[in-house]
Amino acid sequence: MPIRVVLVGARNPLNIGAAARALSNFGLIDLVLVDPYDPSWREAKSAMGGKGLLAAAPVASSVQEAVADCSLVIGTASIRDRLLKLTVRRLEQGAKLIKRHQGRVAILFGSEKTGLSNEDLSLCHWLLRIPTRHEHESMNLGQAVAVTAYELAGRGEAAAKVKPVEQKGIGSLELDRISGRLFDILTVSGYVQAKTAGSSRLKVRRLLRRMDLQASDAEVWLGMLRQISWKLNQP
Amino acid sequence: MPIRVVLVGARNPLNIGAAARALSNFGLIDLVLVDPYDPSWREAKSAMGGKGLLAAAPVASSVQEAVADCSLVIGTASIRDRLLKLTVRRLEQGAKLIKRHQGRVAILFGSEKTGLSNEDLSLCHWLLRIPTRHEHESMNLGQAVAVTAYELAGRGEAAAKVKPVEQKGIGSLELDRISGRLFDILTVSGYVQAKTAGSSRLKVRRLLRRMDLQASDAEVWLGMLRQISWKLNQP
Repeated sequence: MPIRVVLVGARNPLNIGAAARALSNFGLIDLVLVDPYDPSWREAKSAMGGKGLLAAAPVASSVQEAVADCSLVIGTASIRDRLLKLTVRRLEQGAKLIKRHQGRVAILFGSEKTGLSNEDLSLCHWLLRIPTRHEHESMNLGQAVAVTAYELAGRGEAAAKVKPVEQKGIGSLELDRISGRLFDILTVSGYVQAKTAGSSRLKVRRLLRRMDLQASDAEVWLGMLRQISWKLNQP
Repeated sequence: MPIRVVLVGARNPLNIGAAARALSNFGLIDLVLVDPYDPSWREAKSAMGGKGLLAAAPVASSVQEAVADCSLVIGTASIRDRLLKLTVRRLEQGAKLIKRHQGRVAILFGSEKTGLSNEDLSLCHWLLRIPTRHEHESMNLGQAVAVTAYELAGRGEAAAKVKPVEQKGIGSLELDRISGRLFDILTVSGYVQAKTAGSSRLKVRRLLRRMDLQASDAEVWLGMLRQISWKLNQP
């Protein structure tokens, strides 16, 4: 299932650059543009690391040409497309089908303003929908491409087993209180040296955060430290 | 596990707007900014549907203030952060832990140029990494927020059962040959009327795509249609 991403009639060079960058981030390097609106798109500044991909991207004169060697063509759905008879699949489900497909797959993204035309949609086998919430469905083009590429790239390697964390964590404010108190103690006790005080403070913070302190222990800790501090500051 | 997203020292108002939009898309509506670089960020044009979220976002004077009521603080990792002793978790794994956490969770995104500072990182319990490819790791801020929000929002509902698709699909070029031939036949035969020809052509295309034609059947179909066409065009 080699995957080609086709941007159809994208208007904003920055969006084209952002899309190229996200594709490059996730290793999808077959990008084709159809009818980009602005002739300066190849200079898209926001491309950054996606520059190579953008420079190499062919421009097709039509969607048909762009997908000619693809045996599965998938459109990205906007709200109005639900009126069509095309099957709409959620990104997660759709990605599974795409990975199983034997042959090249094209995924079409429409322009920022109008999405894919009926003409474009008529070339699609089915539609892919990113499950945004009902109240605010429409995504930015570069972000839609990024999310799609992330899912298609398998979200990284297979998930490792993760141990559940059940205890109620300690609040940052309290953690800082403990951390600050401990740092004061270490300073007064001569453990922290003046010239490395800055980095020592950060080390203490990190140390405490690695401990996974429970909320129920915070008061105990503070009590202990307060006591040590009092003792250290006695004349 | 209510989730707060904290943008630390974001420089570009467009990126702030894009981040707000993505968060709104996926229903994460607790956004806090720390020290935004450009005072005009609230006018960020690219916010679009994220405007409400952006207008309501509080500005904290420090990361500590922004995460004061959070019991789990997570940084987003850049390459150099691997040198630190903090645990780095892949987004997918990390999202599972975040969902299980009892208490408010803060996720910090650093500035576009410099990422999170050592000071910021010292407030983090662990780091989240979006699994981009080694050759091009650094993501655009708005896109990183979008991908993270997508994963945290659970990628939509639980996956429905998806039937495997095993047959080799037909190429778009061939499908159009069949579709075009069929359309000609329908026109010649009077099925397609002149004033609705445009939409009929698209209907035929969609009809064929819904059929899930196999590559091995393409020649057979074309043969049949060619024959019908020949017959229809006889004087």
